[in-house]
Amino acid sequence: MSALARKAEALDAADELAPIRELFTLDPDTVYLDGNSLGALPRHVPDRMREVITHEWGALRIRSWEESGWWTAPERIGDRIAPLVGAAPGTVVVGDSTSVNVFKALVAAIRLAGPDRDEVLVDATTFPTDGYLAESAARMTSRRIVPYVPGDPVGPRTAAVLVNHADYRTGRLHDLPAVTAAVHAAGAAVVWDLCHSAGALPVGLEAHGVDFAVGCTYKYLNGGPGSPAFLYVRPDLQASFDSPLPGWNSHADPFGMTAGYAPADGVVRGRVGTPDILSMLALESALDVWEGVTIEAVRAKSLVLTDFFLECVRLESLTPVVHAERGSQVSLRCENAGAVMKELIARGVVGDFRPPDVLRFGFTPLYVSFGDALRAARVLGEVLG
Amino acid sequence: MSALARKAEALDAADELAPIRELFTLDPDTVYLDGNSLGALPRHVPDRMREVITHEWGALRIRSWEESGWWTAPERIGDRIAPLVGAAPGTVVVGDSTSVNVFKALVAAIRLAGPDRDEVLVDATTFPTDGYLAESAARMTSRRIVPYVPGDPVGPRTAAVLVNHADYRTGRLHDLPAVTAAVHAAGAAVVWDLCHSAGALPVGLEAHGVDFAVGCTYKYLNGGPGSPAFLYVRPDLQASFDSPLPGWNSHADPFGMTAGYAPADGVVRGRVGTPDILSMLALESALDVWEGVTIEAVRAKSLVLTDFFLECVRLESLTPVVHAERGSQVSLRCENAGAVMKELIARGVVGDFRPPDVLRFGFTPLYVSFGDALRAARVLGEVLG
Repeated sequence: MSALARKAEALDAADELAPIRELFTLDPDTVYLDGNSLGALPRHVPDRMREVITHEWGALRIRSWEESGWWTAPERIGDRIAPLVGAAPGTVVVGDSTSVNVFKALVAAIRLAGPDRDEVLVDATTFPTDGYLAESAARMTSRRIVPYVPGDPVGPRTAAVLVNHADYRTGRLHDLPAVTAAVHAAGAAVVWDLCHSAGALPVGLEAHGVDFAVGCTYKYLNGGPGSPAFLYVRPDLQASFDSPLPGWNSHADPFGMTAGYAPADGVVRGRVGTPDILSMLALESALDVWEGVTIEAVRAKSLVLTDFFLECVRLESLTPVVHAERGSQVSLRCENAGAVMKELIARGVVGDFRPPDVLRFGFTPLYVSFGDALRAARVLGEVLG
Repeated sequence: MSALARKAEALDAADELAPIRELFTLDPDTVYLDGNSLGALPRHVPDRMREVITHEWGALRIRSWEESGWWTAPERIGDRIAPLVGAAPGTVVVGDSTSVNVFKALVAAIRLAGPDRDEVLVDATTFPTDGYLAESAARMTSRRIVPYVPGDPVGPRTAAVLVNHADYRTGRLHDLPAVTAAVHAAGAAVVWDLCHSAGALPVGLEAHGVDFAVGCTYKYLNGGPGSPAFLYVRPDLQASFDSPLPGWNSHADPFGMTAGYAPADGVVRGRVGTPDILSMLALESALDVWEGVTIEAVRAKSLVLTDFFLECVRLESLTPVVHAERGSQVSLRCENAGAVMKELIARGVVGDFRPPDVLRFGFTPLYVSFGDALRAARVLGEVLG
């Protein structure tokens, strides 16, 4: 047995999260390092969904909006996600896609600023959809977009700043406390996109006074394909949250069916239309795997796991080596990355390819083992020859 | 046996759609007249969803975006809905809530108009969420809302008109061909909300040259709680469809991950973020009940069914008696309507209450029988004493 194999074995033996892996449906022939794209299926979800479909929809039908708690699911599930991102109860609501929530949050952030603040700063390497929606938000509020590199100064013309907490391509983790403080010092509001950090590492929304945040639930939160996104609104900003998508679900009296819009109190104000209950309840069920797991333990394992993987591979890493700057993925620069990833997948190591030259491997500490990391590195070595 | 009972029996015996009822999960003790709020569960959906969850998500995971056709589900399911609303393939896309689609369609409609067209006409008795979103669309495009009664003249200052095809409260069906023609004659664009007509009656989007339409899939299309809505864009308007929610799913090259937004061709342009696959595939599966069923047959039964129900009850109907003005529901004016509906539900007749004084009964011809209509009327008579 090689030194690396012995090390992997020892790390797995000492891993307090190792038993959590059993809660997921995994294939012994596959190393799944794409949980940052679509999280694996928690084993108990199919049975719960059968109950939702046959009993709650099939038998109770319309009564389930009240009796099965469908109506309040967006805020109830928000409260389940809140502790994972360091937020208080009543500050997170689930629904719609991340894209739609970026639009809501950014427009609301811009509307807090005076008209002289005509610039919207957007993370220069943002996940594309955030940029497209920011362009639309700027256009519809008569602002202009300025590319922003986290750490750059923020000026008096800034209305709002949109930043990805972890860069989807490189895995670089931005300094949320420092950027938030800098934006606040300039008198602006910040919207954090937590798609690649929620469920992977502590975010500390409340501790760092973040204004708004959005995030994805089908990556590290394993909610299922296209499960609804979440929106965070800081408690003191909820009363002035002025959504560009004021649907009947965010009305103070949704069943009053009044012609005038009167927004509900609280983060419920971030809701819009009827929530997609099946996707939403699959997410709620998937969150059960977090019972007794702390996000700090997840982060600790993630760093050791990605350290170990970096030790096992020889390609150049785009993902920072410094822990404070690393998300829960490793992106390696590689010639013919597209073809290499295809071959890796054919050999049972599933990551993804990001053009032009990036092999991206996501490490979900809840179900990825050190043995997995070693096997992935070995197969990669074989493919590269 | 009473004359009405004999008539119900004869009508059920002659009903060509009667066998479709067997495709649904229904409770023999309940008359379900709330399918215009949440359609009943088609029997085969739970098994299909188990396969989606355990195999497509659980086993194939990320590969399902391609191998299981997840990525193209919004337009594929749109093509399944298209014939039910008289639309051609490639004109309907599924995703997001109705509310969000109202915003997309109305902003896109307004953007077709010159700046001198400063008015947005909105159905004066619209379902509230349409009105709230229209207010937001008008605010964000510097227009003002003018309440509109379908049939009223449309003037040269009108940018766009938003109308509900069937009124959610009264069940009144508006004259889609005439209103569309009048709006076009005034040089404006129309957005039809088909929530209470899609799957209940022929809409004829293409035949009448409708510009944009949105609709719900969890009512007469039985897609499940909060199943995604649909958006129709007339073929010749697709190239200029300027969405306020341009997400990566509507990009011409979504996996190119480019910073600049370049919209896709076709109705795909109406997509935004990652689709909620579980809710979406439940809808797709639910649409199987339409195999061999024409919307004309559904409409024919709906009119006979609601005629018969009106014959059996004695309360004042808010729903027009004239067929051309009637949707697929019957709304009755009733003192203490809230308490009366509670008692009806306790006795197994499920409709809903709309403040202040309306008992609303939806008739889904796919699974409601004439015997159901008679029983509902009799129980109502008993409750009223």
